[in-house]
Amino acid sequence: MSKGKRIVLASRPAGEPAPDNFRLEDYDLASPGEGQVLLRTIWLSLDPYMRGRMSDGPSYAAPVPIDGVMEGGTVCEVIESRSPGLAAGDIVLAHSGWQSHALVDGRGLRKIDPNLAPISTALGVLGMPGMTAYTGLLAIGNPQPGETVVVAAASGAVGSAVGQIAKIKGARAIGIAGGKDKCDYVVKELGFDACLDHRDADLAAQLKDACPKGIDVYFENVGGKVFEAVYPRLNNFARIPVCGLIADYNTIFGPDTPTPKWANSIMRAILVKRLTFRGFIVTDFAAMHGDFLRDMGQWVREGRVKYREFVTEGLASAPEAFIGLLRGANFGKQLVRIGPDRS
Amino acid sequence: MSKGKRIVLASRPAGEPAPDNFRLEDYDLASPGEGQVLLRTIWLSLDPYMRGRMSDGPSYAAPVPIDGVMEGGTVCEVIESRSPGLAAGDIVLAHSGWQSHALVDGRGLRKIDPNLAPISTALGVLGMPGMTAYTGLLAIGNPQPGETVVVAAASGAVGSAVGQIAKIKGARAIGIAGGKDKCDYVVKELGFDACLDHRDADLAAQLKDACPKGIDVYFENVGGKVFEAVYPRLNNFARIPVCGLIADYNTIFGPDTPTPKWANSIMRAILVKRLTFRGFIVTDFAAMHGDFLRDMGQWVREGRVKYREFVTEGLASAPEAFIGLLRGANFGKQLVRIGPDRS
Repeated sequence: MSKGKRIVLASRPAGEPAPDNFRLEDYDLASPGEGQVLLRTIWLSLDPYMRGRMSDGPSYAAPVPIDGVMEGGTVCEVIESRSPGLAAGDIVLAHSGWQSHALVDGRGLRKIDPNLAPISTALGVLGMPGMTAYTGLLAIGNPQPGETVVVAAASGAVGSAVGQIAKIKGARAIGIAGGKDKCDYVVKELGFDACLDHRDADLAAQLKDACPKGIDVYFENVGGKVFEAVYPRLNNFARIPVCGLIADYNTIFGPDTPTPKWANSIMRAILVKRLTFRGFIVTDFAAMHGDFLRDMGQWVREGRVKYREFVTEGLASAPEAFIGLLRGANFGKQLVRIGPDRS
Repeated sequence: MSKGKRIVLASRPAGEPAPDNFRLEDYDLASPGEGQVLLRTIWLSLDPYMRGRMSDGPSYAAPVPIDGVMEGGTVCEVIESRSPGLAAGDIVLAHSGWQSHALVDGRGLRKIDPNLAPISTALGVLGMPGMTAYTGLLAIGNPQPGETVVVAAASGAVGSAVGQIAKIKGARAIGIAGGKDKCDYVVKELGFDACLDHRDADLAAQLKDACPKGIDVYFENVGGKVFEAVYPRLNNFARIPVCGLIADYNTIFGPDTPTPKWANSIMRAILVKRLTFRGFIVTDFAAMHGDFLRDMGQWVREGRVKYREFVTEGLASAPEAFIGLLRGANFGKQLVRIGPDRS
């Protein structure tokens, strides 16, 4: 019987993963049952989200069990198929994990045409990381011509696509990366307007210089110090798609998480629960005023929306009434009667 | 010459406003110039945002100057008009502040029909507070039938409308208010499903009981302890329109702001800058996959989007490569070559 190799999670890391959290082992290869295919792995993608799967805290996906095969996206060749529509030699996108071979249900596989692009791109620019950049930037960030888009890990799979798509949409793209080589690549090869080194002590000052009109979109995929530098430069109405916090993963997912810094806890919740926090001032929605008057007027007339007024008498009562309002002393809409209805 | 009365900001409060931050004074009334109208104030609205105007820190609106008339929305009668379309006796919505009379440009006024609703509602349920509830809840909160909506200051002008609109939309409405009388009113008069007293020491436990399926929309208008109780109960994909943080106003806008609690700083930024933070996982946007493949495929083919791969060789290299990935050791998309392209 043939043997395969696989890497399993031997233990859960405390903080940064170490080699002994993993174990390489042999296993026996089986033949496909009805509907199954046997895959040979060509490419395995490594992605930051995997750190989350190594811990058993609450998240949006179940953790890898101890002694379970580490999960991951793969590009594989079909070796043997008992699944309709798949034949030996086909190249497929799978999620078969850190192993040389896998026996899987054929229905979870997507065929890749090797003539369209290198097959490895199905794990990168034309795969999950590219799709992350595309959807987060366009559906949430919504960059407009002339706006400033900042993205960290700018030479990485997601960040590099974010900045380039921002340029295609007419925005300025400012990258942040680790080291001169990466920054040079981001500017000279990828065409970003600038790229800053997050290792520089004066990152915040550099960011201010690179973004003289502030930041309109911050594509958040690292967290930590980069977020802290970006935060004060965010413009009104800035959009912050949050898809990763790699700088914090080892502490966020660690067992002895220290008292979180103020941003960590809320940013982790935004990410893991896909929360939307959006600040607004009522005038931002001026265009809805007609709808409001129509609906609310009707609801009030029908008695479906009731209201209560809390009235104090005379202009001189306003200061005390206002102080009371901040203390919750009012009961209903606070009004001051300044004069009679009819003069 | 007739006299009017007005209340000016005598000094900026440190923390909670005190009566001596205000001064009541007489002033001479003048006659309208071309385009102006003289108003007699009937109703003055008091609203929490006024606390922000009393401080001179950065915000979305300029502060009231020292010795300036406190600003505020009003319902007024036109006494004398030199503005086309306005005549003595008309009732108008103005922003003429804490004073008995005002000389204003006629173009900034909106006529109110006293036959449609009590004129005071133009400052409440049919005015800015009602519009705040309507737009924030519907355009950001977007409550769905069966979802749970939580709002604090539930007996107030904004909160009472939020909960009632939520009910109209088929959602459950849970209010939070201060004291038994307010809570009774919110449930029995306004028809909320429940209302909790924020003064109770076990608010968090009560909230858990009242929201057995978690919280889908939290309409944030108070901040502070209420937010801290709500925060752990937020469901995946919860929406949090942020339009006020009244519980924190005296510290946020105070001159000796203590080290902010972790939530204060970020929530203030969300409010004042109207930020949108939205967490996402790429699979949330599965419907965009076709667009992604079309656009990104084309951009890659055209060379408008470039990519770089960082490859380590062999399954056994995966753990070290992954550890390096978390440290930023990779340069481009991290892949592990598990096998050759062709077997």
